[in-house]
Amino acid sequence: MKCSKCGKKAVIYQKYSGLYLCKEHFLDDVERKVRAEMRRFRMIERNDCIAVALSGGKDSSTLLFLLKKILGHREDLEFVAISINEGIKGYREKMLENARKFASSLNVPHFVFSFKEEFGFSTDDFANAGFEQAPCSFCGVLRRKLLERKARELGATKIAIAHNLDDEAQTVLLNYLKGDFERLLRLNSRREEFIPRIKPLRSVPEKEVALFAILKNIPFSVSECPYLRKSLRFSVKKLLNEIERQHAGIKYSLVRGYERLVELLPKPAFELQRCEICGEPSASKICKACEMLLRLQKLTKNNKSKREFNKGSFRRFDA
Amino acid sequence: MKCSKCGKKAVIYQKYSGLYLCKEHFLDDVERKVRAEMRRFRMIERNDCIAVALSGGKDSSTLLFLLKKILGHREDLEFVAISINEGIKGYREKMLENARKFASSLNVPHFVFSFKEEFGFSTDDFANAGFEQAPCSFCGVLRRKLLERKARELGATKIAIAHNLDDEAQTVLLNYLKGDFERLLRLNSRREEFIPRIKPLRSVPEKEVALFAILKNIPFSVSECPYLRKSLRFSVKKLLNEIERQHAGIKYSLVRGYERLVELLPKPAFELQRCEICGEPSASKICKACEMLLRLQKLTKNNKSKREFNKGSFRRFDA
Repeated sequence: MKCSKCGKKAVIYQKYSGLYLCKEHFLDDVERKVRAEMRRFRMIERNDCIAVALSGGKDSSTLLFLLKKILGHREDLEFVAISINEGIKGYREKMLENARKFASSLNVPHFVFSFKEEFGFSTDDFANAGFEQAPCSFCGVLRRKLLERKARELGATKIAIAHNLDDEAQTVLLNYLKGDFERLLRLNSRREEFIPRIKPLRSVPEKEVALFAILKNIPFSVSECPYLRKSLRFSVKKLLNEIERQHAGIKYSLVRGYERLVELLPKPAFELQRCEICGEPSASKICKACEMLLRLQKLTKNNKSKREFNKGSFRRFDA
Repeated sequence: MKCSKCGKKAVIYQKYSGLYLCKEHFLDDVERKVRAEMRRFRMIERNDCIAVALSGGKDSSTLLFLLKKILGHREDLEFVAISINEGIKGYREKMLENARKFASSLNVPHFVFSFKEEFGFSTDDFANAGFEQAPCSFCGVLRRKLLERKARELGATKIAIAHNLDDEAQTVLLNYLKGDFERLLRLNSRREEFIPRIKPLRSVPEKEVALFAILKNIPFSVSECPYLRKSLRFSVKKLLNEIERQHAGIKYSLVRGYERLVELLPKPAFELQRCEICGEPSASKICKACEMLLRLQKLTKNNKSKREFNKGSFRRFDA
């Protein structure tokens, strides 16, 4: 098929827009979407130091590439790349090596921090302890925690996350399925004590990020986390893709609807505290990461309380 | 397996509650859920005349049965059953005959009203006109319209709808997918000019309604609407069932989350008008049903404007 804009050979058909696009117009389209989201949410401010969460996969490598391409000429901005090693054997090592090489090729300082060193636990330790739930919610909370902590230590003023449209739509749907609007309200009143998280790829569909990376020869690792398929997020991902096939555009309408909802919801004055354990900003006396770590420490010492643990508040619907 | 309550032979395993139930305890459990929802939403008031929307399928027949069982002794209450004939050949006729017999067996006056007589169009007429979308959104709007109109004419003070938990969860998820929070806000500020709609089965899962009907020998028709599989609702139904299998309880958490959301959202003072065409209460100058009918009349006269129609506001994501 031919490009709807110039008649050259098309590399993609975007069912949601009705357009066929050639390589050049497709690459332009992705960059245009990223620029538009960055403007719309005023993601970048003068003198920002941007910490890019770099896993070595297609999304984060493309994000780093595009940020450097779009903003690399600005002398007031700084970039660092942070990789988190959760300790997932056979999965993370190769990706980290890839991340290291790619950051170096773009002249971006790169830092790796590990769960084991920081928390004393790896995700494998937790997953092999025999609890009934997928380790994903545990892993996600600690990854965010470590990223925030290290970004702050490195002097970052923004954390750039490579969530694409599919990730965003999944997150929105997960929140809806869990009915967790209290959490949404907290997110809605994010305080300046936290480093703002920006998501420049949030309106680019996952398969377009992959195609962009391939066409631009961005090196990325394609291995899949061995725990992925256990999570509710994975079920939601499959199902959203199935609906999107028949009802193109549903991922966009889901994310846009959520944005409108956030506008409609009240913004509660929420009391920000310092976690009694780590001293970092927290919505409660003990932050979620420290609460999880406490429970993990207890439980790995005493396997009898596994049953207790499985009854716990993050047993169900872990993302 | 044995009943978790009495040790007799179980007829069902409720994964979401972790209970096995025998016939007797299962029937009790369904009735208890219905009574609890009726109390929680104060569905029934003194001297109510309850119009039950009776299709002749398992849900509405079970609803009528349970309403009569729970409330039949109350002399201040009145019941009527209303069936709508949308004009879907090979599907509706048998169900209507079933509805007629069942209402008669419970001594409930039964009325049938048809799209063709009332609006001049049947759902088949519309479906065969060659428009690209499923006829479901059209059919749904007109069915609600006709039900409301006839219930009012019959002096009803409540309209009882047989939506079960699955229907409710699907509706909630459809609203989320469409991102249609403006509609949610309107529903949130329902005005007394409309007859209140009550849904006593809203916390009973679909397969439990079916099992209840079978165990109680409630006659019902099992035919499936020929247009069902074209709708977004059907995709959503499949998706929810698949997630529920792996993550039991997700339908409940979806519906409960929605209830909390409705509480959180503001209740706008919305101006209720009278539709300029039918004179009935409406949120806009011309009610949605009359707007659809106008377009249909134009379009069946002039097939060239099909393209126009397919571009229209209810083209996409019809439920």
